[in-house]
Amino acid sequence: MRISLIGAGNLATRLGIALKKAGHEFVQVYSRTEASAQVLADLLGAEAVVQPNFLHKDASLYICALKDDALPEILKKVEVGNGILVHTAGSLPLEVLKPFAAKTGVFYPLQTFSKEREVDFNTIPVFVESSDKVVLYILKQLAADLGSEVYEINSEQRLKLHLSAVFACNFTNYLYTISSDLLAEQNLPFEVLKPLILETAAKVQSNVPVSVQTGPAVRFDKAVMDKHLALLEKHPAWKALYKELSLGIHQRTKTHQK
Amino acid sequence: MRISLIGAGNLATRLGIALKKAGHEFVQVYSRTEASAQVLADLLGAEAVVQPNFLHKDASLYICALKDDALPEILKKVEVGNGILVHTAGSLPLEVLKPFAAKTGVFYPLQTFSKEREVDFNTIPVFVESSDKVVLYILKQLAADLGSEVYEINSEQRLKLHLSAVFACNFTNYLYTISSDLLAEQNLPFEVLKPLILETAAKVQSNVPVSVQTGPAVRFDKAVMDKHLALLEKHPAWKALYKELSLGIHQRTKTHQK
Repeated sequence: MRISLIGAGNLATRLGIALKKAGHEFVQVYSRTEASAQVLADLLGAEAVVQPNFLHKDASLYICALKDDALPEILKKVEVGNGILVHTAGSLPLEVLKPFAAKTGVFYPLQTFSKEREVDFNTIPVFVESSDKVVLYILKQLAADLGSEVYEINSEQRLKLHLSAVFACNFTNYLYTISSDLLAEQNLPFEVLKPLILETAAKVQSNVPVSVQTGPAVRFDKAVMDKHLALLEKHPAWKALYKELSLGIHQRTKTHQK
Repeated sequence: MRISLIGAGNLATRLGIALKKAGHEFVQVYSRTEASAQVLADLLGAEAVVQPNFLHKDASLYICALKDDALPEILKKVEVGNGILVHTAGSLPLEVLKPFAAKTGVFYPLQTFSKEREVDFNTIPVFVESSDKVVLYILKQLAADLGSEVYEINSEQRLKLHLSAVFACNFTNYLYTISSDLLAEQNLPFEVLKPLILETAAKVQSNVPVSVQTGPAVRFDKAVMDKHLALLEKHPAWKALYKELSLGIHQRTKTHQK
């Protein structure tokens, strides 16, 4: 397909590169930041534009990968002609695109993306939505071109999926940050936790998470937990988290039928 | 060394198997659960015992891998003769062993262990402590036999290390559970989150966690967060966690100098 990208952030970058590799052609890349537009446009052999109204209306697919709140403002300046307009957001319904195009869809790859970090789309599930059967077919084909597993879900399901990803990825990364900060207080390198972090993630690839839950909270070991809480005196927010997460673990593992 | 194991749980099992592979000899395995003692004793070519006072006092090393609160009760029935007595707990000081042996130490491998899941001790850091230089030397050698990186830390540092591991492993696994429960409510398989979970853990192997933090909380995107909170109405505890973790992320990333 002839694709234009609206946005040049992490997701736009990795998705653009993957689609290019899969044989698709890129026409233009828009970003309000000229350097970002240019870097990605160069990678994709496309033209960089810094004004949304500079986007030509002859692409067959416009992939909008903007921040949620920037999307309506930018899109009202874009003419997509007969092209398909899709967004890539977990938390936006399909209908936000209705004012801007006749053929609309959602193409949501569930992964955490960084510009510089290569990811294998083979292992990434893609969630698609469209009210138009033809568009749906095209989006499924696009996912197949990337080697991705494709799922058709509606906007409500996608929002809940996004929420679950916030717990599994964003919140998890914050726990890594807390643990790294705690180690730093003892002059211990974050290095020592890396194998544990990898193994914790690896374990749930073949086990239901609740079935491999370990730690003092499972048996609500007050002696250990009190020692830990005493160490968190200087960090009231982390202390509160410790209590709530421990209580949650205890209740959840109790109700889990082993 | 001629080793007896006191305990036959996850850690005892994996550590025993690894030490056996490294050429050490096992004399006896104690567990109050006969089946557990027997299974591990068979794996290690040792004798199973279900009473602590059945342990012979001629082993050169006694590795005590019991639950924290069970330890004093059991150890007071064990005679270790001239043997070295070590425990493997993150949250117990070295001194808890003082009443039970002349030569004591701590051998704490930082990993999450399951009986059935093989782990590579090559990648696991081991934290040792002893007030006796000779014991310390022996424990370092033992870690080296396993191919493990070895660190000498005191009991206070180990407790904080254990606390950081609770955040990085136990609490993280609970977040996986929440995300899996949220998916189940939408009839979506946990399968779809697995690549995201792995990538999140993989990212911090080569990046400081705070530097790769993503998600709506970073920019405190109220529109997205309010949608998520509305989905959590039925789960007040998770809703509270969502708010606190989001606030923590926002504050921590704000103070991080990129």
